[in-house]
Amino acid sequence: MCTAATYKTEDFYFGRTLDYECSYGEEIVIMPRNFRLQFLNMGVCESHYAVIGTAHIAKGYPLFYDAMNEKGLCMAGLNFVGNARYFKNAPDKDNVAQYEFIPYILGKCADVNEAKELISKINITDTPFDEQMPAGQLHWIIADRNSAITVESVSDGIKVYDNPIGVLTNNPPFDEQMFRLNDYMHLSRKQPQNNFSDKLELKTYSRGMGAIGLPGDLSSQSRFVRVAFVKANSVSAKGETESVSQFFHILGSVDQQRGCCEVKDKEYEITIYTSCCNADKGIYYYTTYDNHRISAVDMRKENLDGNELISYPMITEEKINYQN
Amino acid sequence: MCTAATYKTEDFYFGRTLDYECSYGEEIVIMPRNFRLQFLNMGVCESHYAVIGTAHIAKGYPLFYDAMNEKGLCMAGLNFVGNARYFKNAPDKDNVAQYEFIPYILGKCADVNEAKELISKINITDTPFDEQMPAGQLHWIIADRNSAITVESVSDGIKVYDNPIGVLTNNPPFDEQMFRLNDYMHLSRKQPQNNFSDKLELKTYSRGMGAIGLPGDLSSQSRFVRVAFVKANSVSAKGETESVSQFFHILGSVDQQRGCCEVKDKEYEITIYTSCCNADKGIYYYTTYDNHRISAVDMRKENLDGNELISYPMITEEKINYQN
Amino acid sequence: MCTAATYKTEDFYFGRTLDYECSYGEEIVIMPRNFRLQFLNMGVCESHYAVIGTAHIAKGYPLFYDAMNEKGLCMAGLNFVGNARYFKNAPDKDNVAQYEFIPYILGKCADVNEAKELISKINITDTPFDEQMPAGQLHWIIADRNSAITVESVSDGIKVYDNPIGVLTNNPPFDEQMFRLNDYMHLSRKQPQNNFSDKLELKTYSRGMGAIGLPGDLSSQSRFVRVAFVKANSVSAKGETESVSQFFHILGSVDQQRGCCEVKDKEYEITIYTSCCNADKGIYYYTTYDNHRISAVDMRKENLDGNELISYPMITEEKINYQN
Amino acid sequence: MCTAATYKTEDFYFGRTLDYECSYGEEIVIMPRNFRLQFLNMGVCESHYAVIGTAHIAKGYPLFYDAMNEKGLCMAGLNFVGNARYFKNAPDKDNVAQYEFIPYILGKCADVNEAKELISKINITDTPFDEQMPAGQLHWIIADRNSAITVESVSDGIKVYDNPIGVLTNNPPFDEQMFRLNDYMHLSRKQPQNNFSDKLELKTYSRGMGAIGLPGDLSSQSRFVRVAFVKANSVSAKGETESVSQFFHILGSVDQQRGCCEVKDKEYEITIYTSCCNADKGIYYYTTYDNHRISAVDMRKENLDGNELISYPMITEEKINYQN
Repeated sequence: MCTAATYKTEDFYFGRTLDYECSYGEEIVIMPRNFRLQFLNMGVCESHYAVIGTAHIAKGYPLFYDAMNEKGLCMAGLNFVGNARYFKNAPDKDNVAQYEFIPYILGKCADVNEAKELISKINITDTPFDEQMPAGQLHWIIADRNSAITVESVSDGIKVYDNPIGVLTNNPPFDEQMFRLNDYMHLSRKQPQNNFSDKLELKTYSRGMGAIGLPGDLSSQSRFVRVAFVKANSVSAKGETESVSQFFHILGSVDQQRGCCEVKDKEYEITIYTSCCNADKGIYYYTTYDNHRISAVDMRKENLDGNELISYPMITEEKINYQN
Repeated sequence: MCTAATYKTEDFYFGRTLDYECSYGEEIVIMPRNFRLQFLNMGVCESHYAVIGTAHIAKGYPLFYDAMNEKGLCMAGLNFVGNARYFKNAPDKDNVAQYEFIPYILGKCADVNEAKELISKINITDTPFDEQMPAGQLHWIIADRNSAITVESVSDGIKVYDNPIGVLTNNPPFDEQMFRLNDYMHLSRKQPQNNFSDKLELKTYSRGMGAIGLPGDLSSQSRFVRVAFVKANSVSAKGETESVSQFFHILGSVDQQRGCCEVKDKEYEITIYTSCCNADKGIYYYTTYDNHRISAVDMRKENLDGNELISYPMITEEKINYQN
Repeated sequence: MCTAATYKTEDFYFGRTLDYECSYGEEIVIMPRNFRLQFLNMGVCESHYAVIGTAHIAKGYPLFYDAMNEKGLCMAGLNFVGNARYFKNAPDKDNVAQYEFIPYILGKCADVNEAKELISKINITDTPFDEQMPAGQLHWIIADRNSAITVESVSDGIKVYDNPIGVLTNNPPFDEQMFRLNDYMHLSRKQPQNNFSDKLELKTYSRGMGAIGLPGDLSSQSRFVRVAFVKANSVSAKGETESVSQFFHILGSVDQQRGCCEVKDKEYEITIYTSCCNADKGIYYYTTYDNHRISAVDMRKENLDGNELISYPMITEEKINYQN
Repeated sequence: MCTAATYKTEDFYFGRTLDYECSYGEEIVIMPRNFRLQFLNMGVCESHYAVIGTAHIAKGYPLFYDAMNEKGLCMAGLNFVGNARYFKNAPDKDNVAQYEFIPYILGKCADVNEAKELISKINITDTPFDEQMPAGQLHWIIADRNSAITVESVSDGIKVYDNPIGVLTNNPPFDEQMFRLNDYMHLSRKQPQNNFSDKLELKTYSRGMGAIGLPGDLSSQSRFVRVAFVKANSVSAKGETESVSQFFHILGSVDQQRGCCEVKDKEYEITIYTSCCNADKGIYYYTTYDNHRISAVDMRKENLDGNELISYPMITEEKINYQN
């Protein structure tokens, strides 16, 4: 499945893991301001915010997995199988197809508040991109440096949740995942106190015992709790490389190792890539399962007033730095 | 604290994390065959197997943290505070100071069986390297491609345990850590079956639910269970980069993120470096907390018949690969 | 807090624990068929099913905690603090005050289907019984030998859930509690299999290891999972004493021991009483915290056509059976 | 398997559960002072302390499961399968057969210190009681009002451990069980604090959340932790019935319900009986699986100077107290 997280030092960072058993051919894609966005029901958008993210380009259209725009608004879609529900067109609503949702929001909104405003009018429709590509079942995290929300389109409509922890995984719905954190409130970065009995001499035989009880498996609820704890307790210097490094450590806590999650006979879900957007500088960093080195594409080095998609291949090969 | 693990595909891999709140200035060090090893009580060893590993060089002496020799024997020392005990010289024993233990074994032994033989005669003494450096409290994992052992010098003498899982962390003693795996035998890479009740329809709402119960915190026992599960279930292609990549994913499962383990006020233990030896090819790979890219030093590119230590600095700076 | 459960052998059994730090003076109360029930908004009910249960009698009115009627329909109210919400009178609804809900349903309904029908028209109102007694925040389990439901009146109205496991505790809402059982589907009455690694010899060093992971604390979610597991796996002979005995063992699994749940300084929540209704025979069994012996009141030994409440004190004193 | 615990208010209490899938015909047995104890290797003991406990009488000999003597010294044997080891007679030792161990200690020792002294000279031998009854694999808890010890005869001889928590279950060895309590030191009778994040508003949605993490299954290690927590936090009035009642609540926390631990196809381990000795008054209380009422035998009501065993049947039938 997948995990998304936010992180803030001097700058604001946002990213996600994409966990799956195979890749669909994703690239780092920059959608400049004048790329013509023809929406199904919402007309044509000739000019919009520039966007960078990971996308699969199909028939010239960027199907974004996660992205940010030049204003620092970030968004990612994560699997929400069994709970997501999209609808037929509604006459009194802004009908946005599921696959249009990321470009629609990032193209038009400068921050979370604007996104909320727009979403209040939206009906997410189930029109597939094409016959080969049925609408994936997703929910979304949308974040800027000040706040984050989770958007879920379920059987009784669109739910918009404040996301105070700034993380998202998959099932169950977001409010239930947040509620579960209550069960873990005692977890601490510090060593535990002996509350068990004041008559017993208990001892901390290892460092790090304050978080005993933190789940370590790869299920979506366990990843939610784990990445929430790691993110909430993360400490780093404020510089760019230190912040980016720490961000990859945060998402590294929910890395899916090949072999630990068998989805079919001898098929394993792994963390295909991990991304980290610097939302202030417009830089998209990433690693892949077999390329531990951080690569980056900087949207501000491109002509953002263009009208053609710009894409960079995702570098998936490990280039080891031999010192001798 | 620290975690060590082994992994085998075509070649045999061995490595460890070094987790601590500060660094003592470690380097990648090659000790060639004719580097003069003057032991405290065991005489001078003029010629021995060549060794590569991470060490702090003090007064020209390589204080190895983890290393392998040219025969493919690997060894690492990990914290064992409160349980390790070293002794005064014993008349009928081979008295080896704690800090000499790694060069003594790797200098003389081609495999685990030879190491066991040597250890059966050894008394590990508490003579410090010098006044500034008291003997650390450690235990050791020694491994070759066929087997692994754990060596603990405790109050009632040296214990040598077979290490069938090929992992080591810190406290409690190794046999107790192994015993705990029994509590986790139900954990699986596959989805769980409903054993709870045949009258209830329970469902797997997420992938990866077969390992629910796996601990996720940073205490030594929890890291032991977690890395054991990840290692035991790891799958990768057999090639060098795939194997090395997978190895770093295995040890990544016990990565210590800055902020999650506070050891003193605002001091945090982190994974300072992670190493991976290819024991067949003599290549020492590593990453550091702030350098996600894998670096490597190949002992076979050096003159292994020399008599001087060869050292390479550990590269700790993130070199991001900008694609534009 | 509290726990309710159902159990079926030859007969159908239903009961609950009442967990709190103090008692309000409860008795075993029989409400015969012609006891005049004057509802606040639903008129007078001169004749109804006879009911037996534990109640606090205030101003001649039986405030039932849990009860069954002569038809074998059973019902209990359990704390639901923070989630329960009751409403003002609604013009198009059957307005039933919260404290009237048990007599209203048990007085009129012969089974769960009839109860569901009635509830579909009900609005539970917040009118207190009197000024001294504000409406408690409760939800309810209603069960007969064929099925069970949970009824929750929350901010968006009344929810009626099928309750396939036949247990209820407190927060969070019932659907979330049921959902959590998915996380425990691997728990088994049988010993676990080694799924961890086929290369490690792991062993079952104790009986009962198949349910490792079952929570043992007194929080409402943990009690829900625990009692669900014990109930779902319970086995007993079909006779009356064997069935009743087993029922008290089921609820004994969530017994609250004095001292383990401190609610204010040196005030402890305990299991004040535990009840077990034989819904087929009309016998109400119970134990109290300090009276382990099972006591019983049999409604069919009374004149059920009367119009006066019949009450028996709850025997709370331990009468030890001295054999010499 | 089994669980033993101690408890102290005004008086000192000691007892155990006997968990198994079948009964061997146990009775409440008083061994008066002049019952002739013919030991295998330790001669005849014509006069000794009077003892009361549960025993199976075979060929006129009381095979005690648990017992106390008139001085208030208490002792119970619990399963220790796979770890217990008994020996052949040793020339320089007091050779006591495993089945003689309880009468030997309770016959001769007034307190734990005297027991320790005697045990320091003992070799526990593997001579079976007779051919039909091989020596069970047991370890023991011995306790008086001031202290408790655990005695284990294992492959490297007899181990005597101080038992500061005053509980015992089965595997693994006692020191490892005690060590595990360190992992649970954060558990509390009070509500948890939010240590997870000072930026998140987490809440306690239920009472009793301070002990989240306490194991609830029936394995021996989990029962050890659970009963230790319940015992360590128990609160009761000091009177006899309140203390006895609380003691049964303590051991009730590790009750084995029929169906939850399947040992062979459709055979289930249950808590056959639970005992509670008042060590100051010489009263032996007990309940059985199907008799919730507490029964009692008072040794001081018998002629303790006799030379014949006195026995009372264990009352196993539920006598419900019908109030009408």
